Amino acid sequence: MVGIIMGSQSDLPIMEQAANFLKSLNIPYELTVVSAHRTPERMFDYAKTAKERGLKVIIAGAGGAAHLPGMVASCTTLPVIGVPILSSNSIDGWDSVLSILQMPGGIPVATVALNGALNAGILAVKILGSSNDAVAENLQKYQDSLKDKVLGTVDDIKNHHPNHYDK
Amino acid sequence: MVGIIMGSQSDLPIMEQAANFLKSLNIPYELTVVSAHRTPERMFDYAKTAKERGLKVIIAGAGGAAHLPGMVASCTTLPVIGVPILSSNSIDGWDSVLSILQMPGGIPVATVALNGALNAGILAVKILGSSNDAVAENLQKYQDSLKDKVLGTVDDIKNHHPNHYDK
Amino acid sequence: MVGIIMGSQSDLPIMEQAANFLKSLNIPYELTVVSAHRTPERMFDYAKTAKERGLKVIIAGAGGAAHLPGMVASCTTLPVIGVPILSSNSIDGWDSVLSILQMPGGIPVATVALNGALNAGILAVKILGSSNDAVAENLQKYQDSLKDKVLGTVDDIKNHHPNHYDK
Amino acid sequence: MVGIIMGSQSDLPIMEQAANFLKSLNIPYELTVVSAHRTPERMFDYAKTAKERGLKVIIAGAGGAAHLPGMVASCTTLPVIGVPILSSNSIDGWDSVLSILQMPGGIPVATVALNGALNAGILAVKILGSSNDAVAENLQKYQDSLKDKVLGTVDDIKNHHPNHYDK
Amino acid sequence: MVGIIMGSQSDLPIMEQAANFLKSLNIPYELTVVSAHRTPERMFDYAKTAKERGLKVIIAGAGGAAHLPGMVASCTTLPVIGVPILSSNSIDGWDSVLSILQMPGGIPVATVALNGALNAGILAVKILGSSNDAVAENLQKYQDSLKDKVLGTVDDIKNHHPNHYDK
Amino acid sequence: MVGIIMGSQSDLPIMEQAANFLKSLNIPYELTVVSAHRTPERMFDYAKTAKERGLKVIIAGAGGAAHLPGMVASCTTLPVIGVPILSSNSIDGWDSVLSILQMPGGIPVATVALNGALNAGILAVKILGSSNDAVAENLQKYQDSLKDKVLGTVDDIKNHHPNHYDK
Amino acid sequence: MVGIIMGSQSDLPIMEQAANFLKSLNIPYELTVVSAHRTPERMFDYAKTAKERGLKVIIAGAGGAAHLPGMVASCTTLPVIGVPILSSNSIDGWDSVLSILQMPGGIPVATVALNGALNAGILAVKILGSSNDAVAENLQKYQDSLKDKVLGTVDDIKNHHPNHYDK
Amino acid sequence: MVGIIMGSQSDLPIMEQAANFLKSLNIPYELTVVSAHRTPERMFDYAKTAKERGLKVIIAGAGGAAHLPGMVASCTTLPVIGVPILSSNSIDGWDSVLSILQMPGGIPVATVALNGALNAGILAVKILGSSNDAVAENLQKYQDSLKDKVLGTVDDIKNHHPNHYDK
Repeated sequence: MVGIIMGSQSDLPIMEQAANFLKSLNIPYELTVVSAHRTPERMFDYAKTAKERGLKVIIAGAGGAAHLPGMVASCTTLPVIGVPILSSNSIDGWDSVLSILQMPGGIPVATVALNGALNAGILAVKILGSSNDAVAENLQKYQDSLKDKVLGTVDDIKNHHPNHYDK
Repeated sequence: MVGIIMGSQSDLPIMEQAANFLKSLNIPYELTVVSAHRTPERMFDYAKTAKERGLKVIIAGAGGAAHLPGMVASCTTLPVIGVPILSSNSIDGWDSVLSILQMPGGIPVATVALNGALNAGILAVKILGSSNDAVAENLQKYQDSLKDKVLGTVDDIKNHHPNHYDK
Repeated sequence: MVGIIMGSQSDLPIMEQAANFLKSLNIPYELTVVSAHRTPERMFDYAKTAKERGLKVIIAGAGGAAHLPGMVASCTTLPVIGVPILSSNSIDGWDSVLSILQMPGGIPVATVALNGALNAGILAVKILGSSNDAVAENLQKYQDSLKDKVLGTVDDIKNHHPNHYDK
Repeated sequence: MVGIIMGSQSDLPIMEQAANFLKSLNIPYELTVVSAHRTPERMFDYAKTAKERGLKVIIAGAGGAAHLPGMVASCTTLPVIGVPILSSNSIDGWDSVLSILQMPGGIPVATVALNGALNAGILAVKILGSSNDAVAENLQKYQDSLKDKVLGTVDDIKNHHPNHYDK
Repeated sequence: MVGIIMGSQSDLPIMEQAANFLKSLNIPYELTVVSAHRTPERMFDYAKTAKERGLKVIIAGAGGAAHLPGMVASCTTLPVIGVPILSSNSIDGWDSVLSILQMPGGIPVATVALNGALNAGILAVKILGSSNDAVAENLQKYQDSLKDKVLGTVDDIKNHHPNHYDK
Repeated sequence: MVGIIMGSQSDLPIMEQAANFLKSLNIPYELTVVSAHRTPERMFDYAKTAKERGLKVIIAGAGGAAHLPGMVASCTTLPVIGVPILSSNSIDGWDSVLSILQMPGGIPVATVALNGALNAGILAVKILGSSNDAVAENLQKYQDSLKDKVLGTVDDIKNHHPNHYDK
Repeated sequence: MVGIIMGSQSDLPIMEQAANFLKSLNIPYELTVVSAHRTPERMFDYAKTAKERGLKVIIAGAGGAAHLPGMVASCTTLPVIGVPILSSNSIDGWDSVLSILQMPGGIPVATVALNGALNAGILAVKILGSSNDAVAENLQKYQDSLKDKVLGTVDDIKNHHPNHYDK
Repeated sequence: MVGIIMGSQSDLPIMEQAANFLKSLNIPYELTVVSAHRTPERMFDYAKTAKERGLKVIIAGAGGAAHLPGMVASCTTLPVIGVPILSSNSIDGWDSVLSILQMPGGIPVATVALNGALNAGILAVKILGSSNDAVAENLQKYQDSLKDKVLGTVDDIKNHHPNHYDK
């Protein structure tokens, strides 16, 4: 249901965070490398057949002058989530952020934070969940678990610092 | 089906572009002002009741230290699209872009370009269309119309410049 | 008298600098984790009950799209000091700085330097000291000690470099 | 009770917003020009006598390489609020923001947004209010009035856009 | 011999500067609109047939998340010159500059200054001239004319300012 | 005694501020256009003969990729003051600032603020004054006049705002 | 046929990537150090004799306030490719990027990505290939090899992630 | 003849580069720590007595919100050279660069590159040399030695790369 693509194998350690989140909620996904600049035909084929292959959302990560998310978005009606990746020789990530975020009118990319592949996975599930109650319920459980983790750290810290706020 | 909110009435001229796009495709929406900082309770109520009121996507626009999209996202499982707005006294829009885009792990916001409310509207339709074929078809027609507009400008320019590329 | 909160346990090594400064002046404080995005209700409760629980100043630190200081400020009349924190995957700290500093008219946050939790602690004491002479005197002693430390380094350096300025 | 200073008369239209806010709450203030670079002695005298003259908070605005807030802070135990001002020949305000915000450990300045003199005025009142209940109550009324203004715009917009959210 | 393309008709006033320079040296060119995002097939066809249609250099201008120059470069062995254009809603041009300049290893784009279409035209002629002496000679004449223009302004200024340097 | 050069006639309105300051102190200067890129030989000749022609300081202003100050500095032992100029198509002045300021080890340029030609003129006089007491005295008078101007504005403002600080 | 120069020996590890690419295609090149600021005469001689010595393209790399590419471009009609290099004490590479990219009208430099010497080498070959079919064919083979490398990583990843896209 | 000051002992490893250069040319200097914020009186005394103590130039280095160079400049007619220092918790050095460079009209600081203390030392010597021929001659020798070092690296590289340019 979710396609995860990236411009280079070096993006894999980041992009796997999206895959792992989907796996944890039993949502089927495919993951592969598609380079906008090195394999433009493959990119076009991927984007144009995505819907008929059953995908509902595409997550695309890339670094530097990151054209993959925007070019894929130009060839499909599926929502495309863009993950800016901090690659070597990047100028602090600005290149990747701006070349994904600042798409012209008509062709949006849903951009997440720098290296934010986990959030891309969650956003894909939010999109699936907006028309699927079972998925939305699982997502709610995940959001509740985030709260529990924070409350766990509250307890940890109490041992070292006075904490009069226990709600 | 789509909720459009903004932090201030001054954001309306931008945010109406999202509403107008939805209207052109006959997709129902609601549009109002919800300020994260001036009406925090209203924001929480809005976010928490959004799903049960039938919304499937929320578009939230804000300028400066723009907390509205992220805070709404923290209170709902619906996908939230964030529109950074270039407000007066902004530092060239960077404040709004970064405070919407750089959400921590767990709480994504689907960020679009600075002042990109039109793209937010299109992205909302892409999300609806991923589980609704009729909507997806309308979207495809819209994307085709973008192509036609470009080809129209190609003809315009021909009168002033030699153009040997006619495909 | 001073509440110290942070968005994540990973902010603790920085935020403890504020706590340690208060401790050194025997000013009571509480310190805990409150996440704007993962525990929004907890954040609201914290902010709304802060004044009645006896707090006079709140110090809030967060990284990335840092909404905690601003959102807390929107729910209390107490002064809120914001500490931008350089977290992993931050874009060099700009995201945190701008999302705390650039608050809209009506809801100020007293922002200090990136990772400036020590200065946040000192600023809290300055605020307390503006209506409490004993506290102000302690603060004056601290500022005098800074001067002494500088003069100590002046002596150190003299051994390696000619220094004709001895005042 | 509040001192308002600025580096140049050209900062007056911005800095008057702080004065006007204080005036609206009947809080006494003084307002004048003190230039760190053109009148350094005057700046030192101002800062050193501020407390004994009865001031409880100082608001200092400056543009470009803005040294006034930080230098004043180095000569008093009073809290100093810094207002970065977008002056002509500024590099988009970054110079003023960074030279006020990024103070070294030991000497904090409570920095507000670019051109954020209104917020500086409100922050000064928050500081006064933390030890003065009457002031705090007036501030609460002000914050409530912000909410009412937002709700007023909600009604305005209803005439042009369908709005199903009426809380 | 030179193909000039741009992502949108709004780029024409800038991009015509390249065309006009080529015209002044009697170098044949074609000029049209090719949008990477709105007409991706047209872009691919343009790039892939460019060499066989007799082009020797391609100049591509685009604003915002500017993918046109890089994508064209990925589909041809011809040198591609990229012109970042300052479009409306750009973040001061950074988006366009970085999404053209920061191409990954393997697919270079020869990037010129923001709005630097004139320089793109000159660079195209430099490329043609590196294997064509007549073209190179014309270029040398152009560079000499730049020198003459400067010396003309030297004379202008002499009337208002003492100038002891007459070489 | 002071050479003022600029890369283009369009820099004249800014650079004349340096000339006017020198004129006001009766310090002889020459002013002309020298383009690093359009008249490189003229630039080299200017720099190499500057000392023997009697110059003691050179002020060089340029915009964009501003190479004039640094290149002149590489050909003379005279101190060179660089003035970054905000030209059209500049990226907010950053290009000019950084290409003048960030000179490599061995070849310094004394850089002043963006469009800071007045300060360049004053700095030139400070340099002359460091070995000439009459010049230094005139400079002291100028600095005193700055103070008087500030005190004048203090009086102006008193009519509109309470000002209890009269020193 | 290609001249490769750099401002400092410390740039060699980056700049050798251009040389190695040329070597792999049997294209003759020369490589040396030419400092704009430390050896200005050498730079001028190099640039002015480049064409007559048989060079067709010049690749120039430099860091910080990087004047070498632009100054060389001002003294020759050959195309000059500029490589911004991230040197120590650079401000994240921005200085080098902007002082190479933002050349004034009349004197273009074909700028590639930060540390993008490999791409500079490829761009030089593209330029040579635009008038030499044998070179262009070799370049096409190189671009094909990039595609093969991507497809190789596709196979690698399949072992760890489900991948339903095999084209 | 040259005063070298810095805001903190941690700046010493950088600032010693200025001292070492002066020492190599036998130019007397004094070096000490003077903190604008921690020892404001010491700073004022230093600046006001600098001229009468025989100094001709002051070099001042500082990091973060770096007020030392500008404040010293406001209290003396001597030329002040500012060295922005990349300190811990700096935002990539921008804070220090901008708070030294962007001085308001009337009070110039001769700013050098980030961490550019060596260049500050050289610039001080250029200033001394503009009225002292012996010093200027030593400086010329230093500049010649830079050229020789470059030519030395040219020879080194020849062993590994073909180099047809031997001038």
